[in-house]
Amino acid sequence: MNEMAKMRIEDVDTPALMLDADALERNLARMQGLAAAAGLAYRPHAKSHKSPLIAKMQIAAGAVGVCCAKLGEAEVMAAGGVPDIHLTTPVIGRSKIARLMQAAGQAQLSVVADDGGNIADLAAGAADAGLRLDVLVEVDVGQGRCGVPPGAPAVVLADTIAGYDSLNLKGLQGYQGLIQMTGDFGARATAAQSALDQLLQTAQMVRDRGHAVEVLTGGGTGTSVIDAALNGLTEIQPGGYIFMDSRYGEIAWDDGDKTPFEKSMSLLASVISRPADDRAILDMGYKAVSSDGGLPTPTGVAGAGFSFAGEEHGQLSWNGAPCPLAIGDKVSFWPSHCDTTVNLYDRYIVTRGDVVEDLWDIPARGRSQ
Amino acid sequence: MNEMAKMRIEDVDTPALMLDADALERNLARMQGLAAAAGLAYRPHAKSHKSPLIAKMQIAAGAVGVCCAKLGEAEVMAAGGVPDIHLTTPVIGRSKIARLMQAAGQAQLSVVADDGGNIADLAAGAADAGLRLDVLVEVDVGQGRCGVPPGAPAVVLADTIAGYDSLNLKGLQGYQGLIQMTGDFGARATAAQSALDQLLQTAQMVRDRGHAVEVLTGGGTGTSVIDAALNGLTEIQPGGYIFMDSRYGEIAWDDGDKTPFEKSMSLLASVISRPADDRAILDMGYKAVSSDGGLPTPTGVAGAGFSFAGEEHGQLSWNGAPCPLAIGDKVSFWPSHCDTTVNLYDRYIVTRGDVVEDLWDIPARGRSQ
Repeated sequence: MNEMAKMRIEDVDTPALMLDADALERNLARMQGLAAAAGLAYRPHAKSHKSPLIAKMQIAAGAVGVCCAKLGEAEVMAAGGVPDIHLTTPVIGRSKIARLMQAAGQAQLSVVADDGGNIADLAAGAADAGLRLDVLVEVDVGQGRCGVPPGAPAVVLADTIAGYDSLNLKGLQGYQGLIQMTGDFGARATAAQSALDQLLQTAQMVRDRGHAVEVLTGGGTGTSVIDAALNGLTEIQPGGYIFMDSRYGEIAWDDGDKTPFEKSMSLLASVISRPADDRAILDMGYKAVSSDGGLPTPTGVAGAGFSFAGEEHGQLSWNGAPCPLAIGDKVSFWPSHCDTTVNLYDRYIVTRGDVVEDLWDIPARGRSQ
Repeated sequence: MNEMAKMRIEDVDTPALMLDADALERNLARMQGLAAAAGLAYRPHAKSHKSPLIAKMQIAAGAVGVCCAKLGEAEVMAAGGVPDIHLTTPVIGRSKIARLMQAAGQAQLSVVADDGGNIADLAAGAADAGLRLDVLVEVDVGQGRCGVPPGAPAVVLADTIAGYDSLNLKGLQGYQGLIQMTGDFGARATAAQSALDQLLQTAQMVRDRGHAVEVLTGGGTGTSVIDAALNGLTEIQPGGYIFMDSRYGEIAWDDGDKTPFEKSMSLLASVISRPADDRAILDMGYKAVSSDGGLPTPTGVAGAGFSFAGEEHGQLSWNGAPCPLAIGDKVSFWPSHCDTTVNLYDRYIVTRGDVVEDLWDIPARGRSQ
């Protein structure tokens, strides 16, 4: 609570990043329910919210810990009291490995690797720090980004990790990011099954070499219902489910087309100019909402189309029809991509019903290193 | 100076926002020279750099003050000791006008307006604060964003401003942002002349009503050479010239095709995975470089094409040819749009030659309110 608590939403200075606490809490409960019903551990991705406070809400709701995409995020989570962190991206180089060991002294920490040289560096860093670091082999199950191919190459890395006293082979990571937004549910399910099969076959090969494979981690918001039903992973890594990008609205969720999560994040913008009868200029441009996932979607202004008008301006046009807005009016938007929009802001304006309940800082914003 | 001073560029943790101090200083001197030779005041746009330190370097180089796009930026500049600030966007509503008056107590401050109701609000706020606020009429000289049409509508607003004791009619702003990237120099010059003619004719009408018009402000980096030659504005507002977006490289600069400014900003990324013979995965995605102006351009890696691979990853592909990079190698990029990239970072890594000379904070980052 603070000076803004209980102010009205209409009085918030714009552009502002708004978070609906009720919707957020429902999303947390739903993902936890999905994972628990399937007997999966739930390790949500903190890259989405970049907030130790939200991470601890997720853990309070049943999560075993969080994922981070970058070491800088993990440092903020560890410093903020998050007890269990998995780094989903390789950590490369002497400087970052030294930082990684610092963070590993503050929280239970695991990291992926896909290269023998990097594994040797991790082992040396852990030995110097007097730690035994949990390492997972990253397996490329179809995304074509980081990771070694399934099968023999992954087994070689598992052997390599197991060969160092300062490292603990924890398991395998297999994340297929490309299918999270596949529109058709059946096609998404088939692709998720294929990714999972590659990971399970690799895990069996690693076990056949005599290694324990405690953790099989992967999955995202788009495949969460499918991952729960397939029940092959030991833990799931969904991130965006807490906010729900507007672009998720374009994909089918199951055979009944039900969306298990709801949009909790919005942007509030103001009309600052009315240069023509059919147009309004807003105070929200590229610096206030991300564009990499498409345009944000205005709500409550039927017939209006949004376009960017520079770094700090946006435009709503009614294309010849009269614009109903006056200077000073507020307009709400759904962001197309929440994670990259969060990265533009220093805090969430947290609302419940019609009032501002709290402000939450975003301390891992910009922590891409 | 600080703990990073004199570290080698190769040792910087990535992704990082790099600033070449020599190139920056040459750009500052060149724009000042251009303005001085034309007898124009030079008021660079601080939305580009968001740093009071750089603003004061610009003023030390001869600038009369800076522009800001948003009130939040102006607050940071005023708190950082920048003495003279012009707000190029209307400031709307009771809360923001109260903040504006606070800032106007710390620095010489002017603001644009394009609406009679907003002017009345500004007048009331200034009267309450015991200030006399400088206000400029924003004239739409072709951009189609904020501003009233040239001619009679602008004269009405000039009369309105002049009618308040608490406001001082300072002049007119006419900025044509759409032509800054027009590729052909002649077409850009013709469009700049047209924008200027509309502003000059409006200024004459305002003077004919008996008002002084001290300031005619506008122009950007792309038209800077043209604005200087036309010599109709009293001050120019270039922002991007200090960094030079890579996309400026696609436009002609004058009949001799000379670029009067040079790229001073780059991004440093690292290879974190080598999943295939012809590809490298980097630690730079949408959260570390903006995409609204197009893709960043890699340097020193002939034959490679960059693509985004998510929020925190990018890919360089040689498309079947061998990738010469190893895990841990650094790659430098020119950002397509510097202003929105700066907005992702908390500090500049300032280099001179091969060493890191300093770190400069970016305190107005994210100040879109």
